[in-house]
Amino acid sequence: MSLKLDKAGEFDSLSASYLFSEVRQRKSKFLGKNGGEVIDMGVGDIAYPVCETVVEALVRASLEMGDNARFRGYPPESGYQFLKDAIARFYVEMGALIDAEEVFVGEGAKSDASSFCDLFGPAETIIPEPVYPVYRDSALMRGNSITYLSGNKENDFLPLPHGLAKTPAIIWLCSPNNPTGSVYGLGGLQAWVDYALDSGSVILFDAAYSAFAPEGYPKTIYEAKGAESCAVEFCSLSKSAGFTGLRCSWVTIPRGIKLGGARLIDLWRRRQSAKFNGVSYIIQRGAEAALSKKGAEECAEIVNIYKKNSRILGGFLKKVTYVGSGDGSPYIWFECPKGFTSWEFFDRLLGEVRLVGTPGCGFGPSGEGFFRLSCFATEERAREALGRLEKLSLWN
Amino acid sequence: MSLKLDKAGEFDSLSASYLFSEVRQRKSKFLGKNGGEVIDMGVGDIAYPVCETVVEALVRASLEMGDNARFRGYPPESGYQFLKDAIARFYVEMGALIDAEEVFVGEGAKSDASSFCDLFGPAETIIPEPVYPVYRDSALMRGNSITYLSGNKENDFLPLPHGLAKTPAIIWLCSPNNPTGSVYGLGGLQAWVDYALDSGSVILFDAAYSAFAPEGYPKTIYEAKGAESCAVEFCSLSKSAGFTGLRCSWVTIPRGIKLGGARLIDLWRRRQSAKFNGVSYIIQRGAEAALSKKGAEECAEIVNIYKKNSRILGGFLKKVTYVGSGDGSPYIWFECPKGFTSWEFFDRLLGEVRLVGTPGCGFGPSGEGFFRLSCFATEERAREALGRLEKLSLWN
Repeated sequence: MSLKLDKAGEFDSLSASYLFSEVRQRKSKFLGKNGGEVIDMGVGDIAYPVCETVVEALVRASLEMGDNARFRGYPPESGYQFLKDAIARFYVEMGALIDAEEVFVGEGAKSDASSFCDLFGPAETIIPEPVYPVYRDSALMRGNSITYLSGNKENDFLPLPHGLAKTPAIIWLCSPNNPTGSVYGLGGLQAWVDYALDSGSVILFDAAYSAFAPEGYPKTIYEAKGAESCAVEFCSLSKSAGFTGLRCSWVTIPRGIKLGGARLIDLWRRRQSAKFNGVSYIIQRGAEAALSKKGAEECAEIVNIYKKNSRILGGFLKKVTYVGSGDGSPYIWFECPKGFTSWEFFDRLLGEVRLVGTPGCGFGPSGEGFFRLSCFATEERAREALGRLEKLSLWN
Repeated sequence: MSLKLDKAGEFDSLSASYLFSEVRQRKSKFLGKNGGEVIDMGVGDIAYPVCETVVEALVRASLEMGDNARFRGYPPESGYQFLKDAIARFYVEMGALIDAEEVFVGEGAKSDASSFCDLFGPAETIIPEPVYPVYRDSALMRGNSITYLSGNKENDFLPLPHGLAKTPAIIWLCSPNNPTGSVYGLGGLQAWVDYALDSGSVILFDAAYSAFAPEGYPKTIYEAKGAESCAVEFCSLSKSAGFTGLRCSWVTIPRGIKLGGARLIDLWRRRQSAKFNGVSYIIQRGAEAALSKKGAEECAEIVNIYKKNSRILGGFLKKVTYVGSGDGSPYIWFECPKGFTSWEFFDRLLGEVRLVGTPGCGFGPSGEGFFRLSCFATEERAREALGRLEKLSLWN
């Protein structure tokens, strides 16, 4: 039966299927027709299990849930104090003055980032692209108008606000960037923060890949002066600690930021208390362990393998085409061979050497003609992928 | 600094603080001033640890996450097949033909229910009250207009759609009801389904308390004829299996329901794939265990204690005032002593016998003069609470 209600109009502006679903479907279709195996370097999912210290914490917390004296009911909506304290310490170690009360634990940066738009009225949204599709889709679902800033070879895929009108806007930044692997230096971030302060805009900064920032590059927006007056940061343990299957993230909201007379931090607290019931106790204990000294060391070992993969694959690709991603980046972003669109290259790479990646055009118009390979793979798989890339007949 | 952006206007229509936060604050203030202890029967949180079969599954899945051959990355957005199958079987056992593809696993019914409104354009929303504040707050945050239907002593706190205009609307129903503990019979649910079919409305049915439906009462909206053409159901393991601290819920969307030319199930899938990354693997294994034969039996033992508490407390209150909740209801809903508003009674109950409950007025205007006591307590605590209630000087 058809309801006589209206559909949310915003859904019409969304493309029919989510990028990664389309990639999955083409891969399945190929395997269904041809059999055998492929190497999938499409989605940035983890390739190694969760580290020992985290597993121990998960098991301990699971046992607590069955214990009369230690089980826990509803978690605090903003997260347990033990985890908020650990996250605040993580910031202090980076030289950023975030305290525990400015931290909100969530079950995923994707949910946090898209839900955060609930707080703002209809707003201009600035999105440098190519970029993770979630910011765009969330803005569209919210009915916001979007100004895209093109990332390209000329600006090293790091657009800056030069020449933009001083209109108040929601600004999405992601650095180290997904998909391009480019990283803003302190100067670039400072230019964005200055622009936001000048125009009365808010920066929504996605720091999901901060563990991959090269030495000397900022790991948090709060390294830029004045960011505590205009910037909200989203982070997660998915990439730094292999939490994609566990689910834990956080948002930091400096208490000095105001919106329409209210503190932004209070609006988010109100939103979360009405629409969210907090993150699983077990997962929060796992997150606490990942941020401990021992846990962080174990996690870094795995991150280092992904960085090494990046150097192996990037090293070859740099010899045959333009590579935009930085040193040790979790994603390799490179230009497709001449004459190929992103999806054409996707099909060819899959068909000829059974390697799956993500078409650059899925991340925005400036991504057309580019391609993303995820380095979240075992070292062995990355070496196999290298062999396949080398065999591809398209390079000059 | 103040952003020059607009705040979402909808936030202005929300009351300044969420009901349960206010209850928490008054309790803290009392304890800070007077010391000692209180019995808290305010929030419906669990009083017993999670059952053995679930804990075993949580531990096993935690260990898997550290195992090279068995760890899991991003979960499917709609849930793992093993859990969707278990949930579909749960419906089939109740005689409802829901299949696994119509099931979407979430991290909490509060998030699911409030996010579901994203799918609809501005819509009339019908909310029988007193009721769980989340439906109202979600509708307000979405900018929807609300028609409240009054539940009261005359209609046994079970409003029906008699006489309502046939305007398409979003209809929120919750049965067994939070906070009143009243339960629709099949006739009442059928009246609502017939009205929805007639008016082209959608019913959003909150079945969070289905484990408490008395013998002979429907546990799911799908027992009503035609519900598969107009009703979405939200359910969770929080109350039936003590998952408040673990976080697992689900939504069922029959594939026959259409909205503006699209299938409702596809719109939700699109929303979830853009704004959600699925539920933790560990928690999904725990949920599967809770729905297994052995797990369900262990969970039922605990539910039976809560039901017994309800009979103990309700038995006394029926002798001294009007009680609206049904047999074995998870909440006792009763009329405050003559002349007392809900908050006045709250303060008196806390001040005189150190018992915390929830003021009925927080659930809607028809709740003024009523009070809710949660029966999610250990048997021992429930008996202590009974003693305190009996001591209260206000009864005739």
